[in-house]
Amino acid sequence: MILSRGLQVHLSTGDQVTIVGVVGDKTKLSDSNIEIAEGVDKVVAVTESYKLSNRKFHPEDSTIPVGNTSIGPDTLTIMAGPCAIENKDQLMETAFAVKKAGATFLRGGAYKPRTSPYSFQGLEIEGLKYMQEAREATGLRVICEVTSEHAIEAAVKYVDMLQIGARNMQNFELLKEAGKSGLPVLLKRGLSATIDEWLNAAEYIMSEGNEQVVLCERGIRTFETATRNTLD
Amino acid sequence: MILSRGLQVHLSTGDQVTIVGVVGDKTKLSDSNIEIAEGVDKVVAVTESYKLSNRKFHPEDSTIPVGNTSIGPDTLTIMAGPCAIENKDQLMETAFAVKKAGATFLRGGAYKPRTSPYSFQGLEIEGLKYMQEAREATGLRVICEVTSEHAIEAAVKYVDMLQIGARNMQNFELLKEAGKSGLPVLLKRGLSATIDEWLNAAEYIMSEGNEQVVLCERGIRTFETATRNTLD
Amino acid sequence: MILSRGLQVHLSTGDQVTIVGVVGDKTKLSDSNIEIAEGVDKVVAVTESYKLSNRKFHPEDSTIPVGNTSIGPDTLTIMAGPCAIENKDQLMETAFAVKKAGATFLRGGAYKPRTSPYSFQGLEIEGLKYMQEAREATGLRVICEVTSEHAIEAAVKYVDMLQIGARNMQNFELLKEAGKSGLPVLLKRGLSATIDEWLNAAEYIMSEGNEQVVLCERGIRTFETATRNTLD
Amino acid sequence: MILSRGLQVHLSTGDQVTIVGVVGDKTKLSDSNIEIAEGVDKVVAVTESYKLSNRKFHPEDSTIPVGNTSIGPDTLTIMAGPCAIENKDQLMETAFAVKKAGATFLRGGAYKPRTSPYSFQGLEIEGLKYMQEAREATGLRVICEVTSEHAIEAAVKYVDMLQIGARNMQNFELLKEAGKSGLPVLLKRGLSATIDEWLNAAEYIMSEGNEQVVLCERGIRTFETATRNTLD
Repeated sequence: MILSRGLQVHLSTGDQVTIVGVVGDKTKLSDSNIEIAEGVDKVVAVTESYKLSNRKFHPEDSTIPVGNTSIGPDTLTIMAGPCAIENKDQLMETAFAVKKAGATFLRGGAYKPRTSPYSFQGLEIEGLKYMQEAREATGLRVICEVTSEHAIEAAVKYVDMLQIGARNMQNFELLKEAGKSGLPVLLKRGLSATIDEWLNAAEYIMSEGNEQVVLCERGIRTFETATRNTLD
Repeated sequence: MILSRGLQVHLSTGDQVTIVGVVGDKTKLSDSNIEIAEGVDKVVAVTESYKLSNRKFHPEDSTIPVGNTSIGPDTLTIMAGPCAIENKDQLMETAFAVKKAGATFLRGGAYKPRTSPYSFQGLEIEGLKYMQEAREATGLRVICEVTSEHAIEAAVKYVDMLQIGARNMQNFELLKEAGKSGLPVLLKRGLSATIDEWLNAAEYIMSEGNEQVVLCERGIRTFETATRNTLD
Repeated sequence: MILSRGLQVHLSTGDQVTIVGVVGDKTKLSDSNIEIAEGVDKVVAVTESYKLSNRKFHPEDSTIPVGNTSIGPDTLTIMAGPCAIENKDQLMETAFAVKKAGATFLRGGAYKPRTSPYSFQGLEIEGLKYMQEAREATGLRVICEVTSEHAIEAAVKYVDMLQIGARNMQNFELLKEAGKSGLPVLLKRGLSATIDEWLNAAEYIMSEGNEQVVLCERGIRTFETATRNTLD
Repeated sequence: MILSRGLQVHLSTGDQVTIVGVVGDKTKLSDSNIEIAEGVDKVVAVTESYKLSNRKFHPEDSTIPVGNTSIGPDTLTIMAGPCAIENKDQLMETAFAVKKAGATFLRGGAYKPRTSPYSFQGLEIEGLKYMQEAREATGLRVICEVTSEHAIEAAVKYVDMLQIGARNMQNFELLKEAGKSGLPVLLKRGLSATIDEWLNAAEYIMSEGNEQVVLCERGIRTFETATRNTLD
């Protein structure tokens, strides 16, 4: 009935309760008396503009599987590696070092969103290939930041997870492409983003059918942090 | 001599002084004794990472011509119009109204960067066409926000000037595409962007050969403005 | 009737309307049917915690007389002078200079709220006496910052107006003393104060019977202003 | 020699090194060749304006004894109790409850710095007496916020420790009085205070001869916290 009215459905099946999330114009259900349908306990209006990223749609903690590991409530995930991939030796050496130190993910920048156009912009595909080699050599999962549709197209061939950086948290076109990629996405919080804006950014990814979103709190810009620059 | 060493040159010719801006690795000039070349008064190091957007490269105020009007020190430019273009009637009516009120530009959103994926995302090309019609009917210049490479490709056919919104101020891929578009660009300040970051963003556009950049100060996010939402 | 119930009254008499501001516990009027009393047009609840500083109590713009001049809607008041009074010559020279430049008030710091205890803390009473001499010599009104009850006691003998600095905007004991002083008060906005907090600070002064309060907007601290220090 | 030149000395005696902190105008030592005096290893200039609160003056972690307990590196101090003391029963009940829960200090507000002058301003001396009774009944240490010189005069008779609230962090007259009180002082960080300003505020207390200062980080105001109100 819900689908026949042009609404989308999101199912969350728990041990005792099944939550049927409905996304769309609620006036389409105004004459439906859905509360009295068999098996319906109650109808809850979700007033926040984010639905799929809303706890009310899936009250239980999320677990995001990534290859042979997972990110979630019972795990401590450490992602480590160089801000920018400079060359193969640097990356390999770092990969073995972070593995030894307990990391389960290698991170490394192949596409660098630099404040200045004259700063090193990253090795791009060459860097992605080094990441793949490091994964094979160490067994670590690998994650790279993506900054454009083209970077996503390239990255999906080489890495396990995509990172959206703080500067791009509201680059909605990029979020949609990340949603279509099929890979889990690490979404960093924008420097001046509210929690609501952040969850809405996650919603952009999830509304493309990709629910594998991990939120990364990286702090906000205040008078205390005005002069600190690491944003990626 | 400068070009032969792989450096880029930017000329600013004034009435009494010509400034030769040099962009690149300054060590390439370390053995050049450029200070004693004929016609060279002095050599000034520009320590900021932005060069083309730096006053030191063009000390005089900039004037940006846009069609039959221009934006600069001797003009007061008013751009007005709807946040989102909803339909042709709304746009036309607004266009005549803002013209009557003294505006020289019609602004209107055809591609809307919305906090929520479920908000109206804009009429896209249809909206651009209405903008073109409004320009023909009123003689106003027209400006639209662009949010992706595809939007830029479409917009260059219909509008006089591109707008980069606050959320995309550090979407560097978009800035580069705007730089290649050939159209003048209005660059809004990011909500938590420092002046340095803003000028570096302008530099991304200018380093693609497009010096027609207008900076739009739209204020920053503070505890005073935390709950205000208009960001475009 | 209002007074007999233990409430305070504040009268604002205009040409056509008289506003009777009532401050206190509104439940004391719950059985009063005040709306139907003769001469009562309507009853408006003021939900903000500030009453006397609230526009609803005196909708017209305020004018604060200070000696032979006044601060208000039809005047442009310029207060100028040294951050700290260093000696008599410096103050006199400055006083004549600012008068020539159009100022109507001489400001000068005799009690300095310094970030460091080792910075010069001001000439105190000696500085106040120089201010008085400068007033007599130039005819300017004079204003000094006060930082303690003792400073207020001294300042009332020598100056026309008291200044409460940004750091002391919520030093409520000081505000009350300023309220009792009988002098008009310039209240600077605190670095992280909301408008509500500022108006409540004004209310502290006004609730002591002193309505001669002038608000001075000096900006707030943000990531843009983190390193700027002038606070007094 | 140092004292004879009008400088102040602060001694920090460790197991292996004694640090002689000198506060004052360093030019007074310019002809002293103090580096070559016997027993002097090296001379370090402290460029920060705070000296006594500076790690360079006492590199070891501080321990602040308060009655039968102490605050420092090897202890976890929990201070708990009501924001405002409302009456004796409320305070006593709370005191036993927080003791049972592991607190070593009872905190309670007798002088309340309220945003609005019409909010309850505290029981003042009556509240202090209840605090003393609670201390005797439970064996807890007790701490109260002080907001004026008069409050300090009263509080020293009844409590173990004084609290300076966030709003008064740069109420320098109050800091000096707290310095003279002889009691340990808990100094809360101002809502928009930098670390430097906070340490300088501690310096005001310490420069009066009271080194028993505990810093309490209570967070800063940002766009994230704009609407939260608890400041005391």
